[in-house]
Amino acid sequence: MTGQKTLWSMVQKVREANPLVHNITNFVVMNTTANALLAAGASPIMAHAQEEMAEMAGIAGALVINIGTLSAPWIESMFAAGAVARDKGTPVVVDPVGAGASRLRTETSVRLLKDVRPTVLRGNASEILAVAGASGLVDKARLEAGTPKGVDSRLDARAVADVADDLAEASRAVICVSGPSDLVTDGTRRAFITGGDEMMPLVTGLGCTATSLVGAYSAVMEDAFDATVAAMAVMSTAGGMAASRANGPGTMQLHFIDALYTMTEEDIKNHVTVEYIG
Amino acid sequence: MTGQKTLWSMVQKVREANPLVHNITNFVVMNTTANALLAAGASPIMAHAQEEMAEMAGIAGALVINIGTLSAPWIESMFAAGAVARDKGTPVVVDPVGAGASRLRTETSVRLLKDVRPTVLRGNASEILAVAGASGLVDKARLEAGTPKGVDSRLDARAVADVADDLAEASRAVICVSGPSDLVTDGTRRAFITGGDEMMPLVTGLGCTATSLVGAYSAVMEDAFDATVAAMAVMSTAGGMAASRANGPGTMQLHFIDALYTMTEEDIKNHVTVEYIG
Amino acid sequence: MTGQKTLWSMVQKVREANPLVHNITNFVVMNTTANALLAAGASPIMAHAQEEMAEMAGIAGALVINIGTLSAPWIESMFAAGAVARDKGTPVVVDPVGAGASRLRTETSVRLLKDVRPTVLRGNASEILAVAGASGLVDKARLEAGTPKGVDSRLDARAVADVADDLAEASRAVICVSGPSDLVTDGTRRAFITGGDEMMPLVTGLGCTATSLVGAYSAVMEDAFDATVAAMAVMSTAGGMAASRANGPGTMQLHFIDALYTMTEEDIKNHVTVEYIG
Repeated sequence: MTGQKTLWSMVQKVREANPLVHNITNFVVMNTTANALLAAGASPIMAHAQEEMAEMAGIAGALVINIGTLSAPWIESMFAAGAVARDKGTPVVVDPVGAGASRLRTETSVRLLKDVRPTVLRGNASEILAVAGASGLVDKARLEAGTPKGVDSRLDARAVADVADDLAEASRAVICVSGPSDLVTDGTRRAFITGGDEMMPLVTGLGCTATSLVGAYSAVMEDAFDATVAAMAVMSTAGGMAASRANGPGTMQLHFIDALYTMTEEDIKNHVTVEYIG
Repeated sequence: MTGQKTLWSMVQKVREANPLVHNITNFVVMNTTANALLAAGASPIMAHAQEEMAEMAGIAGALVINIGTLSAPWIESMFAAGAVARDKGTPVVVDPVGAGASRLRTETSVRLLKDVRPTVLRGNASEILAVAGASGLVDKARLEAGTPKGVDSRLDARAVADVADDLAEASRAVICVSGPSDLVTDGTRRAFITGGDEMMPLVTGLGCTATSLVGAYSAVMEDAFDATVAAMAVMSTAGGMAASRANGPGTMQLHFIDALYTMTEEDIKNHVTVEYIG
Repeated sequence: MTGQKTLWSMVQKVREANPLVHNITNFVVMNTTANALLAAGASPIMAHAQEEMAEMAGIAGALVINIGTLSAPWIESMFAAGAVARDKGTPVVVDPVGAGASRLRTETSVRLLKDVRPTVLRGNASEILAVAGASGLVDKARLEAGTPKGVDSRLDARAVADVADDLAEASRAVICVSGPSDLVTDGTRRAFITGGDEMMPLVTGLGCTATSLVGAYSAVMEDAFDATVAAMAVMSTAGGMAASRANGPGTMQLHFIDALYTMTEEDIKNHVTVEYIG
């Protein structure tokens, strides 16, 4: 995939295909990620009851698992849905929110990575470092010391690119590290996405929104690497568009949703740069 | 109830009476429905612990049960609160979110309809079809095949009017089917409410907001049919008002809340048409 | 602490120190309080799993416990986190949402006050009256009859100032009563904070936002009385700023977040008055 032209065709594809995205996500972002999916052209399902996981994961075009407000019964549902999705070949995207901040989060993330074998793992640099470290899948020498502070860490994605490559190769998941520049790697191909706005980390749940959009794009595209790049480019574009209208992170949140809905090919051209390597 | 004049008097009545509405609802919409109730003049209670269901349902002027993010302990609380409300003669409004998409949702909806015997059941066409079908209360010949896709289906309410009539008659609940035109029926009387905006289904939880407003209006009006018509007319009016100010579904969500708060008699006249039949 | 100058230095201190605030809070306000904390310069953690309470409370600069949508497993986590925070000397702020409306809420609030011994207890007048009454810590003669109606009661804080003083003295918690004027008392010192806007109670969760900001300010200031006064003054300032831009409670909610982010020394001067007594 190369160029704005292709990115735009992907935006159109999601709008036309209206993929159903099943989210098992956290309480903080349920409203905003559902709205973001709708604005981008997808159809959200939010469901977490063990009893309906097989049906929900079965009808969805993608499954998004986000551990932001974790608890034991939700973890069970994540694995139940994950197993169904994998059996059906449905793309699964995992967001290890807060990995590194508690053992429960780190261990659940690693177990999801190993047992559910997601199509894409998306987190910030601290979270990806924490998962990589605890997974045992990445050589210790490559692991840099990360000191995650909460869930909004702003470590640069470029700093952890080698770790991300290794983790992608070992886990066979596409790894996406969001930050000032976003990194997407499948171990062989790498892309950096630059755009967005520095106010984005001040809106809670935009990382989780990115994960849900990766789900929507994965549902309509064969290549998970391309889907992830496209979704992150859409995030950056919407972030840039929203920042130009916002007076602060409050209005930013709403203009961001509007931007997902109104985004044109011209907007993508103006607000994001994708740099492919390999 | 006829005409804008009466609708307006109902809007005023809710604002003056400030009814307490107890919501057992889903995680996605708790914030937005609480804000919508406040903006419309009602007082929201959001509570789901089994231990407090009797007290909360006991002090409320209406009970709203919404199955959008269902799980076993919440289902128990729904029935506990429902029983108290029915015993006290408090109006109960049920929203069968996602009925048809999973057995858990369909069966819970049918059980709520049969055991709690709600005053009003409000859903989109797919959900009402799914409940009607699974309830065994509606003649098979009248049931049209529905293929619900998620929870934002846009089947027209007119297409399911006969099924809705039959379900209303058999269940003794007022049935409200929302869509491009909304239908309200008690089996004898029918009303179609036309207005709103095509962007409304792109804001998550506006259906749930409608259900909560039906609760607020039911709390202050004797006739549940009239209360439901009034609440849906208020939804359409606010939707039309909000759309004229919004740049997309993000800003739409906020202008919608503002519209509930600022709505005048003139706004109702400009934005909604109610057509009574029978 | 006296004067706007010092208030402004506190606003700057939170922005610079970026304190981590661990919230065990209700489903309705998770998104908005997380956004408010970010906009004010703090870092929110939302976590409630028993398994991670020790770690989360351990790394946080303050713990906020809000009982707005209570249930048994959450109560256990509140006490587990509260115990860790107290042992480490981390400030704990408790919001007894809906105390008085159900026995579960009243009793849980009293138990939190007695067992966790929070640094600050913040509620509206009805809630504080309910806790004071049920706690047995305040002389019956001082207790006025309160008839709480839901969770948005608008009793004036001045009416319950004596009860608040007594409760502060007996519990050793700073007591904050929000209302048209907010009261903060530690039993010896009293402050009334006046500002804000009458539309504030129509935005769901602004009380809960106040509680979270008290957490953020407590994390960076030695004196919990001063921290609470500063946080409530910031609330009033942001409320006044937001009201001047809002067309209703919907847009109010977003402008409020923006105001937390853009607030200047001049804004504080224009929008809030703090009156110290004793």
